[in-house]
Amino acid sequence: MKVVKFGGSSVASAEQYKKVAEIILADKERKAVIVSAPGKRFDGDQKTTDLLIELAESINNGKTDQAVMAKVLDRYNEIISELHLDSSLIQTIKGRLEELISLYKEDEERLLDALKSSGEDNNAKVMTAYLLSLGHQASYISPKEAGVIVTDEPGNAQILPEAYERIAELRNREGILVIPGFFGYSYQGNIVTFPRGGSDITGSIIAAGLNAVEYENFTDVDSVYCVSPKMVKNPRELKEITYREMRELAYSGFSVFHDEALQPVFQKGIPVRVKNTNRPEAEGTRIVLKRELKGQTVIGIASDNDFCSLNITKYLMNRELGFGRRLLTILEDEGISYEHTPSGIDNMSIILRSHQLVNGKEERVLQRIKEELDVDDINIERKLAMIMVVGEGMKEAVGVAAKAAQALAESRSNIKMINQGSSEVSMMFGVDEESVTRAVNCLYNAYFPSTEKAIH
Amino acid sequence: MKVVKFGGSSVASAEQYKKVAEIILADKERKAVIVSAPGKRFDGDQKTTDLLIELAESINNGKTDQAVMAKVLDRYNEIISELHLDSSLIQTIKGRLEELISLYKEDEERLLDALKSSGEDNNAKVMTAYLLSLGHQASYISPKEAGVIVTDEPGNAQILPEAYERIAELRNREGILVIPGFFGYSYQGNIVTFPRGGSDITGSIIAAGLNAVEYENFTDVDSVYCVSPKMVKNPRELKEITYREMRELAYSGFSVFHDEALQPVFQKGIPVRVKNTNRPEAEGTRIVLKRELKGQTVIGIASDNDFCSLNITKYLMNRELGFGRRLLTILEDEGISYEHTPSGIDNMSIILRSHQLVNGKEERVLQRIKEELDVDDINIERKLAMIMVVGEGMKEAVGVAAKAAQALAESRSNIKMINQGSSEVSMMFGVDEESVTRAVNCLYNAYFPSTEKAIH
Repeated sequence: MKVVKFGGSSVASAEQYKKVAEIILADKERKAVIVSAPGKRFDGDQKTTDLLIELAESINNGKTDQAVMAKVLDRYNEIISELHLDSSLIQTIKGRLEELISLYKEDEERLLDALKSSGEDNNAKVMTAYLLSLGHQASYISPKEAGVIVTDEPGNAQILPEAYERIAELRNREGILVIPGFFGYSYQGNIVTFPRGGSDITGSIIAAGLNAVEYENFTDVDSVYCVSPKMVKNPRELKEITYREMRELAYSGFSVFHDEALQPVFQKGIPVRVKNTNRPEAEGTRIVLKRELKGQTVIGIASDNDFCSLNITKYLMNRELGFGRRLLTILEDEGISYEHTPSGIDNMSIILRSHQLVNGKEERVLQRIKEELDVDDINIERKLAMIMVVGEGMKEAVGVAAKAAQALAESRSNIKMINQGSSEVSMMFGVDEESVTRAVNCLYNAYFPSTEKAIH
Repeated sequence: MKVVKFGGSSVASAEQYKKVAEIILADKERKAVIVSAPGKRFDGDQKTTDLLIELAESINNGKTDQAVMAKVLDRYNEIISELHLDSSLIQTIKGRLEELISLYKEDEERLLDALKSSGEDNNAKVMTAYLLSLGHQASYISPKEAGVIVTDEPGNAQILPEAYERIAELRNREGILVIPGFFGYSYQGNIVTFPRGGSDITGSIIAAGLNAVEYENFTDVDSVYCVSPKMVKNPRELKEITYREMRELAYSGFSVFHDEALQPVFQKGIPVRVKNTNRPEAEGTRIVLKRELKGQTVIGIASDNDFCSLNITKYLMNRELGFGRRLLTILEDEGISYEHTPSGIDNMSIILRSHQLVNGKEERVLQRIKEELDVDDINIERKLAMIMVVGEGMKEAVGVAAKAAQALAESRSNIKMINQGSSEVSMMFGVDEESVTRAVNCLYNAYFPSTEKAIH
């Protein structure tokens, strides 16, 4: 049994619906289908979810925006009519929206969750109707019926452990099960949306609950690439990657879907396959617990901007027991989370994401460190980029660092930071933002020479 | 005015005394002379200081070891007679020793300090007598008279700030001033020895107090080398090195004298020159505040063994605010000081010196981290060596890391840790102890190709 999830662009129009149905029906194993809300049909189009958020805000501001309401309904109407489905469906959707509004209009957060999630919910109903219209056995299963039991905090649903047993019972259901992504139900009976990962997390949870043989995640790219196509032209496709590699890469802005969404399947060791709704014949990328290394030490390169470094100097710092702890306590007081703390003998640096140092926090933190730790000098270095070189084969290989450092030297990037020693599967380099594209391209050429064949 | 310090081997015998006198008299600027206790005259010889410690222990155990007492007196007697000095001097020394013993025999720690320091004290008296016998104006100045005022904790003297003004007054004294190293006097009138650096720290303090133009430190090597001769055959000599470079190198077992001994001259920016008593014509090594880089990015390579790494894994660690602080708090509780804490996304390592994890501490720390921080996995990696590559020119240079990593790859060393990002003048690599010699030699060959000329 496979769980299949379709992203927003895969279910944005009637035309896409047809592709999706073909995909579902092409494999009897595809039993549970998770759908997102209708996404963009073209550049500049609005996602249904964004329209629904607009709608909720208008209501919370005291006046329902009928124009936006109409736009929302149009999205479904277009699909329903083009697929010649029973037009009464649109009435059901309209009725449900009005029901949610009257139900929650007094509660800003609950209303937002309810309307946001309706994008997926109604799309699941339409998809079910379409599959039925094609003469197949299919049923809409609400997250409540499916057993997706979550915590009750609006916009921050966490799945509850007992949910998985409930979900397992779906195995006995006949036909194709269509489940809306992005939300669950709390014991209090509330609709609660997930904080991250949207429909991906639902798919992952259902796959874990059903103990699926594979979790297929259909999106609009042929595969996961070894480096972002925004950084390198036509980068190599990845046929197989481990959860760990995926997660390390996801850390630095490299993400087909949010890495935390993988946790449920990750814990059960269920393989994930990323595929393209528009090119289902493409093999896609498998995300697995373990993979054969095939001599490939580095599998991917990711990078992220907007880091900064607090550089602290104090003579005999390394003989001062408790210095590091006191420094981190100040950061904790200020609610600042740091990424790395490279330390020398008389100096220590704190690498963190710059957006945390706003509204006078920077001045306050520098001041506190200067005074409370009596440091000789403290300065802040801005506009740093972190580059992550990732691969399960790195731990044992000799010369990986040399190759990377060599490539960075060729890119004329001044290495501000090197972090290796903790993670077994990654190495991190800090460089100036202005040199990051150059650096990533040189690293790519070093680890993925064009002469080599693709990894498979 | 220069301050000249002579190490134990430089004042171990009459023959060495002659060299020392020649050196002092060769330069009128050499005004203040700091002497150590007579050191080893040949391999397997005993240092006077060690004899004196033995003597103190015998007394503390209730019975003065006359044989050891005799050995101590013989050391001075040999020098006095061979230099044809007034034989009554030995009586003075004997008398002083007996005086100290009766004075402190009730107080174990004070007695140890008093006897230990008498090695330098008596040697200063003999040196003064010798200079006088050669017809030069010279006087013995006790640390009390010199104004070396220190804190009162036995064996852990810390210089007091007001000492420097007192010492400055020595500028007005006529002739050569001979001052014993290694100890000072507390306001309570006690003899207190320095915890580290022995006579070097005294020399450094006197040089700072007198605001000397140079602090000459005479020992038995021609110069400081860019790498330990124990690791590399005939390594290159260093003509000039900065305090910072010296300190970074000293951290990993690379040390002509204890780096903290330099602090007083360091703060005044007084240059230090390391010279060889047995080859005074050799230029030696200057330790300065600033030096011209002359295109040399790396100036030295040091290494030290016996490190270990605690490797901790916990899923989503990097989103757990306060994790690092709580981890360091546990180490602090246990009185463990760490060197570095490289961190990944779901993992963090603590690099520390292994000797700290004895007497069940290792088990307790691992247990506490496992339980109190609820980590997924923790393991300890032993027998790690740290290699420090140092040079003021490194910060700005591109490709330094590449060269180092390349050299380590050639040495077939698996790099366990790379630490760069905090110190501007060093880069640190962690490798297995078994590969450290190979690694250091490859690094040496990379940064100091034999074709190049010496650094000067």
